[in-house]
Amino acid sequence: MEKFELHILGCGSALPTTRHFPTSQVLNVRDKLFMIDCGEGAQLQFRRARLKFSRLNHIFISHLHGDHCFGLWGLISTLNLLGRTAELHIHSPRGLEELMRPTLAFFNRQMTYEVLFHEFEADAPAVVYEDRSLTVTTLPLRHRIPCCGFLFAEKPGLNHIVREMVDFYGVPVYELNRIKNGADYVTPEGKVVPNHVLTRPADPPRRYAYCSDTVCLPGLSESLQGVDLLFHEATFATDNLVRARETFHTTAAQAAELARSAGAKRLLIGHFSARYEDESVFLQEAQEIFPAAQLAKEMLCVSL
Amino acid sequence: MEKFELHILGCGSALPTTRHFPTSQVLNVRDKLFMIDCGEGAQLQFRRARLKFSRLNHIFISHLHGDHCFGLWGLISTLNLLGRTAELHIHSPRGLEELMRPTLAFFNRQMTYEVLFHEFEADAPAVVYEDRSLTVTTLPLRHRIPCCGFLFAEKPGLNHIVREMVDFYGVPVYELNRIKNGADYVTPEGKVVPNHVLTRPADPPRRYAYCSDTVCLPGLSESLQGVDLLFHEATFATDNLVRARETFHTTAAQAAELARSAGAKRLLIGHFSARYEDESVFLQEAQEIFPAAQLAKEMLCVSL
Repeated sequence: MEKFELHILGCGSALPTTRHFPTSQVLNVRDKLFMIDCGEGAQLQFRRARLKFSRLNHIFISHLHGDHCFGLWGLISTLNLLGRTAELHIHSPRGLEELMRPTLAFFNRQMTYEVLFHEFEADAPAVVYEDRSLTVTTLPLRHRIPCCGFLFAEKPGLNHIVREMVDFYGVPVYELNRIKNGADYVTPEGKVVPNHVLTRPADPPRRYAYCSDTVCLPGLSESLQGVDLLFHEATFATDNLVRARETFHTTAAQAAELARSAGAKRLLIGHFSARYEDESVFLQEAQEIFPAAQLAKEMLCVSL
Repeated sequence: MEKFELHILGCGSALPTTRHFPTSQVLNVRDKLFMIDCGEGAQLQFRRARLKFSRLNHIFISHLHGDHCFGLWGLISTLNLLGRTAELHIHSPRGLEELMRPTLAFFNRQMTYEVLFHEFEADAPAVVYEDRSLTVTTLPLRHRIPCCGFLFAEKPGLNHIVREMVDFYGVPVYELNRIKNGADYVTPEGKVVPNHVLTRPADPPRRYAYCSDTVCLPGLSESLQGVDLLFHEATFATDNLVRARETFHTTAAQAAELARSAGAKRLLIGHFSARYEDESVFLQEAQEIFPAAQLAKEMLCVSL
């Protein structure tokens, strides 16, 4: 299976603690790196995770709160110092470009590469990225300011060639692409070899959903049906249920409910409030409802 | 002796490494905290050093390069989240306020406290801070953009009362302040008790100098005469002497020469280039010239 790995660079919330960096993640899809949010220190953590800057071309920002984007200035400047030439694409709710352009220009008198901002309205789902193997769709969330999550969905892959059978029937190389795409093979003698004999099914396409920051939105479960991994914010535990609602955040139990009703395969929770010294309460409350829940932590890498 | 402690929060240079945070330090003078430069992640390191935000009222920025100030946005926002009410003073070369105001306003819709910018010209020494026990003077440096270091100088303290002698002579309490300031005591019988009998000398005032980023300026040694601690950048070792000059930086050996000619008591070097995996070369080259040299590292605390 080709790589589909999530790296947690930071999973704290707005207030810094000695335990967590603010929010940032990197999804590695077949060695293309997609950064999701870019809190302060993201570039340091990126290095620590031994990821390669040259593989990073797209950054997705959920919303314009500082703990989700203050790392952009440093990261962009570093890429400039490194002499990057490839364009860097930043996808975010409206407003980021206007905010960043003056400071970026000041701190980077000469840019070796271009930063392209792609801004979207956060209130309706939209495909914000697409390539041969992946689409990224926004998931409108409800927070104090416009905010959305992101659904990373692999496209269905091609069937795998079964080398022994292809050799056995002497299939010529130029036929292989058609066969991967589902065609049968007809021998020179006119014998039809059905596709399923020559191939085994493609790997099931994988999906990763990122939801932070938001009140719990049970209605999301439809868009999240069967995701392989759901990252959901769990800023509070049930002891702060009211506060969670007031501040437009979610509790660990609510995140677990959503994972269950969406039929997610796994749940990762993070964005923990600084007030919890002991985070085991998040895990307990989530696992009671959804056993395949796990706490995010810095440098965790989850492979799908 | 009252506290006079330097905390290193970060001592890397512009490119992030897995070993270092970008530049930031905190000088603790009698429990008042003075931050010097504020690279990305400074607020995280501040927390890790177990320092108290409430004791921090003044930040000094040497120059407007990102690795010396990108931590300001996060720090200022955090203080706002914490509901700070005391003013925060930021001292920097000209240009920072214009640059920061729009983004600060955007990310902090309601400020609970005021940020006051105090901008100076970096090309002439100036007293930029003064209180009862301390002055901070700029040290003009030479870098690619306007830049200056800072000299933190304790004011001479008052003599210490020798409790036993004061009791012996029955000195009334209201005389003590005059005696601390150097006066003799005259008994009701007219006998003169000389000041030196009643007091022991004040602690010698301490001085800390911070010089980063800059080409080596031997002329600085005059302003630095006898400093208790000199922090000087040492971005390169001698193998990159030419590059140091070209990029307006200093080598470890040059920093050591300066410390020696200034008669500094101790030297701390930092701002190491990311290209040096093994930093022992900095220490070797510096100690050959100035044995009381030491490498900066994150979370190091030097007490004077």
